[in-house]
Amino acid sequence: MNSGSALTRIRIVLSHPSHPGNIGAAARAMKTMGLTRLYLVNPRAFPHPQAEALAAGATCVLDGARVCTSPSEALSGTVLAAAVTARRREFAAPTRWAREAAAELVAATCQGDVGLLFGNETSGLSNEESGVCQRLVTIPANPAYASLNLAAAVQVLCYELRLAAIVPGAPPAQEFAHASVEEVERFYGHLERALVASGFHDPRNPRRLMPRLRRLFSRAGLERDEINILRGMLRSFLDKPD
Amino acid sequence: MNSGSALTRIRIVLSHPSHPGNIGAAARAMKTMGLTRLYLVNPRAFPHPQAEALAAGATCVLDGARVCTSPSEALSGTVLAAAVTARRREFAAPTRWAREAAAELVAATCQGDVGLLFGNETSGLSNEESGVCQRLVTIPANPAYASLNLAAAVQVLCYELRLAAIVPGAPPAQEFAHASVEEVERFYGHLERALVASGFHDPRNPRRLMPRLRRLFSRAGLERDEINILRGMLRSFLDKPD
Repeated sequence: MNSGSALTRIRIVLSHPSHPGNIGAAARAMKTMGLTRLYLVNPRAFPHPQAEALAAGATCVLDGARVCTSPSEALSGTVLAAAVTARRREFAAPTRWAREAAAELVAATCQGDVGLLFGNETSGLSNEESGVCQRLVTIPANPAYASLNLAAAVQVLCYELRLAAIVPGAPPAQEFAHASVEEVERFYGHLERALVASGFHDPRNPRRLMPRLRRLFSRAGLERDEINILRGMLRSFLDKPD
Repeated sequence: MNSGSALTRIRIVLSHPSHPGNIGAAARAMKTMGLTRLYLVNPRAFPHPQAEALAAGATCVLDGARVCTSPSEALSGTVLAAAVTARRREFAAPTRWAREAAAELVAATCQGDVGLLFGNETSGLSNEESGVCQRLVTIPANPAYASLNLAAAVQVLCYELRLAAIVPGAPPAQEFAHASVEEVERFYGHLERALVASGFHDPRNPRRLMPRLRRLFSRAGLERDEINILRGMLRSFLDKPD
């Protein structure tokens, strides 16, 4: 799938968030990845000016947030739900790493809404809360310190969901015209003549100079404009009055 | 590579961070992913109580942070450095998505230290600052709102670096003993006899009942303990006084 429509079917559910700032930061994290549907289960304080402040340009996500009284209510009608947890749990649903879980959730959006459930900042999710979900999700983390901030965990999962939903294509680079093989060869010829003329290069004792220069420039991958610049430089060196 | 040694060679460089809270949150994000080497270029306020507070259990990363006066100083001695940017830039270094950049940086740790440079919260990196780096890195984001919080961007990149450095293995699930094929078949036999005895299943008019039940249980993937429970249940049903 190469569209964001899957992302509109994903609910991010925060259960019992303590800090309104984290709600705002989570909203911002969601919007940067193209997600908008926020559900809050018994937030300690919401709405709240700190949530607005941390949401930055994503207050629209806060405005559309639904406040619920239980994870079951927030996940009602979903076809697949996953609980984010760092802890091993007994008798629990299958556990997936974040990347695999994101792929599975996005695939399930073909059938309906899906949900991702995050627990309280300090206590996480109770077994009863995570038991509503058919999957557990874990972010691979440092075993000695796996305590991601709530909004940071939302950011990582939403990032993986976006990558699973939208093939990102080529990076947003400024595109330049690559030089053709012929242009590059003409440059090498020009360069060699210039180095012979300057006395730096002796074709009877070549010391692998040209292969080394070829290696350098081919690693760089020359663009057409760059070749024009380089050949202009060579001309300027050779034409210099001596 | 399946060890964290690559992670000890990665420098996270924050250039001109405005908010000490973001420095602390970035330190926390780093430690959750096993990174520890923080460099700060002209921070507006550091050390600062807000940095300590947001670092949570990662104050050791703040304690070890090196304060520098330029990106060049912070990246001195690195064999590869990448600048994190959301903007297109003219005449810039090759641009990579976060995932590819992480793989390239981790691979380069075989040759020495590598660095990842993040800009100011509002103004990002100047062309002069990013020009110190041989790569640009972009986090795939919502084109309509690509403004990740600084610590959130650090979290995503450190997450990708950790995944590039350490194959995470199986998810940290509670492992249970899968039932053998024979155990499962004995269960199906027991189930069928029980359903015949109860009158629910008529082998002369089977209506595909058993294939449907097989489909359900094979989708679940039965564990040994679960089979014992199920067969105990069947015995209890059949032994019930009627």
